Amino acid sequence: MSLETISTNRGHGGTQGVYRHDSAETGTPMTFSVFVPDHEPGTKLPVLWYLSGLTCTHANVTEKGEFRAACAQHGVIFVAPDTSPRGDDVPDDESYDFGKGAGFYVDATRDPWAQHFRMRSYIEAELPALVAQHFAVDTARQGITGHSMGGHGALTIALRNPDRFRSVSAFSPIVSPLNCPWGDKALTGYLGDDRVGWRAYDACALIEDGARVPALLVDQGTADGFLNEQLRTPLLVAACEKAGQPATIRMQEGYDHSYYFISTFMPEHVAWHAERLRA
Amino acid sequence: MSLETISTNRGHGGTQGVYRHDSAETGTPMTFSVFVPDHEPGTKLPVLWYLSGLTCTHANVTEKGEFRAACAQHGVIFVAPDTSPRGDDVPDDESYDFGKGAGFYVDATRDPWAQHFRMRSYIEAELPALVAQHFAVDTARQGITGHSMGGHGALTIALRNPDRFRSVSAFSPIVSPLNCPWGDKALTGYLGDDRVGWRAYDACALIEDGARVPALLVDQGTADGFLNEQLRTPLLVAACEKAGQPATIRMQEGYDHSYYFISTFMPEHVAWHAERLRA
Repeated sequence: MSLETISTNRGHGGTQGVYRHDSAETGTPMTFSVFVPDHEPGTKLPVLWYLSGLTCTHANVTEKGEFRAACAQHGVIFVAPDTSPRGDDVPDDESYDFGKGAGFYVDATRDPWAQHFRMRSYIEAELPALVAQHFAVDTARQGITGHSMGGHGALTIALRNPDRFRSVSAFSPIVSPLNCPWGDKALTGYLGDDRVGWRAYDACALIEDGARVPALLVDQGTADGFLNEQLRTPLLVAACEKAGQPATIRMQEGYDHSYYFISTFMPEHVAWHAERLRA
Repeated sequence: MSLETISTNRGHGGTQGVYRHDSAETGTPMTFSVFVPDHEPGTKLPVLWYLSGLTCTHANVTEKGEFRAACAQHGVIFVAPDTSPRGDDVPDDESYDFGKGAGFYVDATRDPWAQHFRMRSYIEAELPALVAQHFAVDTARQGITGHSMGGHGALTIALRNPDRFRSVSAFSPIVSPLNCPWGDKALTGYLGDDRVGWRAYDACALIEDGARVPALLVDQGTADGFLNEQLRTPLLVAACEKAGQPATIRMQEGYDHSYYFISTFMPEHVAWHAERLRA
């Protein structure tokens, strides 16, 4: 699988790159970013995946996430994919929370979405293989995190793949698409009305159905305008407590939904993952 | 002088705000950002000014500069102004390096620029008074830094006002507008052909003419495509050596002109200023 380099910049004692490839899953070119700390030639580093929220591309966290200093300090590779397929041939919706920029990390089954909107398989299978081929990642040491819709993606992907990820964290995640307007709209559109089929894409339902992760950390701002209606953190707290899933879920006083919040706690998340990813 | 709050976000244990006011100097609304770390009510904090480069507004460093963690750690207020007047009534040039976004921190004397392009007086007098009125700054403890055109601004403003600033630093500054195409174009346009009048806007000329600053730090990337023709760091090294101006001027291997470079060394610059701004 070939990879086109869009840009590389030296930063924080490592290389921040942006890359593009032709995805077999989405049937489109896909762009993602990778930060690789300087390291001894021949050695492999643990990898932290970061899934972005609604409307974002790889660029938001790459520019505003403040992860590089911590990743360089701890020797962690950081990969940030896009949130959906892109391009003129890809169907879209005029709203910000469905279609392009809003893939919700599902494999769509409904037309016209099913052809291109295969973000689950892209993140779970195609992109990891590509990254392992081109970068010095130790695939035995993977963690995953994300923000909002990407927090939902991180939690559900980790819960479905507990052998792949040693650690999962999230910033202000959508914890239950079954129980919020964003999730209702997106999963109805991509998957149809059979809500039983949605449970594989709902962190709370997955935990209720028996899925577990080795370690879970969530930060959520109390001043986040989406908290009560869309994100619904208390549902995750309840699901973890009921199921005995160990979790650290922290409410952060006065913080909102923005990258000012994410960048504040990013270094702690990187350090937390790194501790669990050490050999 | 009244101030309109555009936005505030909690970040890194402080408040990142964006504000707008009607500037008497530029005759336009002007927008700037201020980060204020949490502090004891009634106490005042030192302030670090950051002047941005060509094409930038306050937003670039506010989003990508990675200064908040260090400013919160050291208790330093961080102010980021715009780079020129803006608005439909302001004359402009079609190129990126003259007119809007390219004020060069001068008071223009040539028409049609003289009416609005008064960034020297705006940064030296009007904005400091406004900031002192509305924020908990200790005006006896000020430092200044900047990037590229803003590095030129920081150096020249500090050299002209040694009693106001205890410290000045710069990221990849234009060190001598008298000796580079960017400077030649901008100062000819704003000030006219009399190059003697330019010397107040040229860091190397100011040092040669006797100006001094208490402490000076510069970081410059070796992979910066503007280094040889526009930035010309060696001219500043020579001017400081000849004049006996103490300076730490560091060439950073492999770094370019981008915010990936700035954000890498920003925490060190904030710490360096903070050390000199302590009571």
